[in-house]
Amino acid sequence: MTTECWINGRLGDMIPVADRGLQYGDGLFETLAVNAGRIALLDYHLDRLLRGCRRLQLHAPSVDALRAELMSAAAGHTKAVLKLIITRGAADRGYGFTSGSETTRILTRHAWPEYPSEFSEIGVHLRICDTHLGHNRRLAGIKHLNRLEQVLARAEWSEIDQVQEGLMLDEEGMVIECTMSNVFAWLDHGVLATPDLQRCGVEGVMRRHLLEQARQASIAVRVAGLALTELMQAKEIFVCNSLIGIWPVTAIGHWKYSIGSMTRQAQRWASET
Amino acid sequence: MTTECWINGRLGDMIPVADRGLQYGDGLFETLAVNAGRIALLDYHLDRLLRGCRRLQLHAPSVDALRAELMSAAAGHTKAVLKLIITRGAADRGYGFTSGSETTRILTRHAWPEYPSEFSEIGVHLRICDTHLGHNRRLAGIKHLNRLEQVLARAEWSEIDQVQEGLMLDEEGMVIECTMSNVFAWLDHGVLATPDLQRCGVEGVMRRHLLEQARQASIAVRVAGLALTELMQAKEIFVCNSLIGIWPVTAIGHWKYSIGSMTRQAQRWASET
Repeated sequence: MTTECWINGRLGDMIPVADRGLQYGDGLFETLAVNAGRIALLDYHLDRLLRGCRRLQLHAPSVDALRAELMSAAAGHTKAVLKLIITRGAADRGYGFTSGSETTRILTRHAWPEYPSEFSEIGVHLRICDTHLGHNRRLAGIKHLNRLEQVLARAEWSEIDQVQEGLMLDEEGMVIECTMSNVFAWLDHGVLATPDLQRCGVEGVMRRHLLEQARQASIAVRVAGLALTELMQAKEIFVCNSLIGIWPVTAIGHWKYSIGSMTRQAQRWASET
Repeated sequence: MTTECWINGRLGDMIPVADRGLQYGDGLFETLAVNAGRIALLDYHLDRLLRGCRRLQLHAPSVDALRAELMSAAAGHTKAVLKLIITRGAADRGYGFTSGSETTRILTRHAWPEYPSEFSEIGVHLRICDTHLGHNRRLAGIKHLNRLEQVLARAEWSEIDQVQEGLMLDEEGMVIECTMSNVFAWLDHGVLATPDLQRCGVEGVMRRHLLEQARQASIAVRVAGLALTELMQAKEIFVCNSLIGIWPVTAIGHWKYSIGSMTRQAQRWASET
């Protein structure tokens, strides 16, 4: 399957140079998993997108129209990825913008990324990235188009048979997330912990799903600062996003971890989306 | 003059949706002042752009070719603005990239922005922005395409007859720069101070020119952390960039400043580019 692309609902794969998405990264995106014609966690994706629009003062598209467009692009596809980008549209030079200006909506459909099934079964190794995540409360949590930190972090390694994901810390050395996934730790005293993302990081839709499932199952959940030393001493560690589901983590640098029942339970939850 | 646009040297104003400049803000830009067919501070612009390419591991275009292209776009124009964007080019989905991949070069020529001449003569008022600049040493100093912080800061005010620029602080409350300009303070004890930009901020080419001119004139220069309280007590304050030259600052919120001889001297230096 080659990539297909629609701009504001019409087939096409070119945008004007004047689009603020290019000029300033002034926009948002969502990456959605299509499975048997259905989009997993669609409501959570739309919810985060609208939250992002409010935060960036972007004129939000109609949710109903967006949902219909996404479902139509997903229909009939066994496995695929949809990527939706919303930008503040084309404008004159300068950071200022007119409120209520027309946004640009870019939808692309991609082949499903075939990660080796061992990643889910026997786990992955993480590198601790040198590239930090900067703090900005106004940008934290949402999935905006300013992604140079992730680009630089991902560029830190190329041996994908040895390292599959990179752990990113903030400037203070606190654990935040991985380059393309969120991180969970099953701590010694029976608490499922994941970093709060008030100052940086992306609030993943799979992270949200897992937190809700864990709470429903009466598992003690902690969403708060997570020090690297604390993560290192966890009984189990896993990372998640809407495409990969859950990858158990069996090594961070030279530290080794085993895959336990909490991780396997999380994988069952992830499969129910 | 309407905007003219060249992509990789050919007339055109559309880029592929797959360009990483749009997808991740994965690129750099320069905004250059054209005056009587000449580009001011061209060497400094090229120098910063190449530094940015090294930092982002972008395959840098040939400097000679770039210089020739810019000079050709400037030739014959009395007053104009050139904006040059370099992106990592089109690629498949995902943060990872292949080193040495072909960059995309986007050059646009714009009408000169006619700021009221009072801004230079009788000065401007600054707002202290609520939007902070996040720290990231890997991105600090260079002029990359991740500009949401500036977009949000600039959106904080709309009364441009009352406020002309916004002062941006980092998370610790230290002064860094303005939304589109660098800031200088002429301190009580005869020191010309501007914030160091090791953790965030853009190293403006006009800032560099002024620092060099001041050093040549044996003025004591300090490039280091600048607390807001220290800025507030300055004898003179001014902001600069390659298009506006120098705007004296006569108010920050309710604090008032007068325009003195240091600011006027800096304006003379700025006119010699």
